[in-house]
Amino acid sequence: MIVVQKYGGTSVGNLERIENVANRIIKSKQLYKDLVVIVSAMSGRTNELIERAQYYSDNPSKLEMDKLLNCGEKESAALLAIALISKGYDAVSLSGKDALMLTSSDYTNAKIISIDNSRVKQELQKGKIVIIAGFQGADENGFETTLGRGGSDLSAVAFAGALNADLCEIYTDVDGVYTTDPRIEPKAKKLDKISYEEMLELASLGAKVLQNRSVELAKKLNVKLVTRSSFNENEGTIITSEEKMEQALVSGIALDKNQARITLRQVEDKPGIAAKVFTTLAKNEINVDMIIQNVGRDGTTNIGFTVPQSSLNQALDAMRELLGANALIESDSEIVKVSVVGVGMKTHAGVASSAFLALANEGINIQMISTSEIKISLIVASKYAELAVRTLHKTYNLDK
Amino acid sequence: MIVVQKYGGTSVGNLERIENVANRIIKSKQLYKDLVVIVSAMSGRTNELIERAQYYSDNPSKLEMDKLLNCGEKESAALLAIALISKGYDAVSLSGKDALMLTSSDYTNAKIISIDNSRVKQELQKGKIVIIAGFQGADENGFETTLGRGGSDLSAVAFAGALNADLCEIYTDVDGVYTTDPRIEPKAKKLDKISYEEMLELASLGAKVLQNRSVELAKKLNVKLVTRSSFNENEGTIITSEEKMEQALVSGIALDKNQARITLRQVEDKPGIAAKVFTTLAKNEINVDMIIQNVGRDGTTNIGFTVPQSSLNQALDAMRELLGANALIESDSEIVKVSVVGVGMKTHAGVASSAFLALANEGINIQMISTSEIKISLIVASKYAELAVRTLHKTYNLDK
Repeated sequence: MIVVQKYGGTSVGNLERIENVANRIIKSKQLYKDLVVIVSAMSGRTNELIERAQYYSDNPSKLEMDKLLNCGEKESAALLAIALISKGYDAVSLSGKDALMLTSSDYTNAKIISIDNSRVKQELQKGKIVIIAGFQGADENGFETTLGRGGSDLSAVAFAGALNADLCEIYTDVDGVYTTDPRIEPKAKKLDKISYEEMLELASLGAKVLQNRSVELAKKLNVKLVTRSSFNENEGTIITSEEKMEQALVSGIALDKNQARITLRQVEDKPGIAAKVFTTLAKNEINVDMIIQNVGRDGTTNIGFTVPQSSLNQALDAMRELLGANALIESDSEIVKVSVVGVGMKTHAGVASSAFLALANEGINIQMISTSEIKISLIVASKYAELAVRTLHKTYNLDK
Repeated sequence: MIVVQKYGGTSVGNLERIENVANRIIKSKQLYKDLVVIVSAMSGRTNELIERAQYYSDNPSKLEMDKLLNCGEKESAALLAIALISKGYDAVSLSGKDALMLTSSDYTNAKIISIDNSRVKQELQKGKIVIIAGFQGADENGFETTLGRGGSDLSAVAFAGALNADLCEIYTDVDGVYTTDPRIEPKAKKLDKISYEEMLELASLGAKVLQNRSVELAKKLNVKLVTRSSFNENEGTIITSEEKMEQALVSGIALDKNQARITLRQVEDKPGIAAKVFTTLAKNEINVDMIIQNVGRDGTTNIGFTVPQSSLNQALDAMRELLGANALIESDSEIVKVSVVGVGMKTHAGVASSAFLALANEGINIQMISTSEIKISLIVASKYAELAVRTLHKTYNLDK
């Protein structure tokens, strides 16, 4: 059985924690024949290196940045190997380049092209625990690269795929994926299982357990993911394909407080107007999230969309410039987005209407609605944020 | 013109100092066509990494130690390259492995086997300033190695040799090589030139400017060395072969306060007795420095030698065990070794007698004498240390 484990920056945050990780690995090695461990840099280290480089330039050479940043994970990988060897276990640390991860040459934000698993397999065959520096690889010229933020998770998933691993365990400082934020709804439950698709929706809605890039890659490579805490022995959350799970109607409720709403009223209802609006926003590098446009009448229509709060003023300026001083432009930053996520929606009717009804019963007005196959997102006034989350959490029996 | 420069840990001790080094390199680049720079880790960094590893073991895996230690110089090399690039100069940082330094597999204390200069030449041909992480290479398996203490100087000399460089400048925090320690004799003068041989004697006598390994390699590869300060614009000291210099009678006076003297009296004067004594000391890993044995009489002889003060008790125990409880063993730790070094001695008679006469005039008794082709070492009582140094400094007109 091949298992890939990944320990994040907090888990290897100091020398004592690295020793704890070593002890955890030793326990795992007794369960699994082949163990490959991906490590992040000690927490704070990557930022420290970035700050040092920025002493010289706001925009330091990316090729050299990657040589610099690479050191963070190499250090923690070597220290972890030293800890394991000193406890009598055979271990070896490899850089991403040593472990033959080939990436694009987009320094500081490289894409994984492929992994040649021969070096890792060779070390496993010698009976070694293989420690790989996460977040890094090398391009076809042999120059070292890094994968951007969250890259260590991505390394773990990619090596799990390349090794055809039975399991990829992602260790962080949280226990797993919850039905909603436990700080809002104390009855929130940790999910035992969730599908890639649901995890993707939850991640893009602000759940910070796993980044979308990693979940997408796990889905593509069909890697069975487990996310769990390195600070306790609790079982985590398994993230796998839909077929392997009983389909829950709804898996979780997510809350995003960072949106602001803009409505353009009585815009001319003719082809190309939406394109103009959103091309303008894109040119200004403003991320648009929800977009609502209804069928118009009287030759005009209303276009509603949400943008990050920090981009609201910039977005308003861009719209005024595009539509002229007399355009009817409304905005509201006192709103939140509440989302209901569940693969069960695909096959069950009535999920959305239950949400609408439950919120109406609490007197919560829904300002905008957007649905996908496995997600319903609702914009409501900020003051209702927590109430809406708790109401929906109860509506779908997530506390049971 | 190809020039190799090496900047030590103090010279790159913080971000501001790295920037100063970058400015110095830029000036040099205007003088020299091809510039290769070797850097140490930021001061304290190597010790920090060693301490971290020792958290897990007093004797951590050497293979993994080298992966860990390697990071120190890679970091300063990348930061220096970033500083240069941000100032508009084309630079590239290379690890020892990137720069194709092949070493033995004696991890943490590897020996340089050879350098393939193709990668460095290729980068120079692109017009780049090449920054190489010092102190490191890789063995034939591609595992990274380090060269042991002082290894960055060694890297500099080795690359200078491999590139057939015109000059190898070693930047430290001192101005160069002095006729003696300026803290003892304020009239000490910085030497403009010194031969490899003299430098070797001075280095082994305690002058801390350059390590013997580096000077020996420079001599072997015929690399013209200059040692100078990175904190000012002073000319340094050129270290080169004898043929290239006017031969000074005496180049410097060195003082070693770390010795203790042992005398074995009335030892049987028969073949093999000295061998027994010094084999015993070697087995105890005691470094013996001076050895004096005179022609004996009455079938016995006296053997005198010096050992490091820290090994004195151990050496005495070993001698008592070897020679028996009744042996006449004397020791004195209140002694120092004063040495006169100069290639001129080879061809000039009377250098030694001038020393003896000058010390006698000051009432300083000489306890032991040992001479080589270019060195006279004298053991005197500790209380005369500074007086002896100043007296000899004056005797050979080194203050002129």
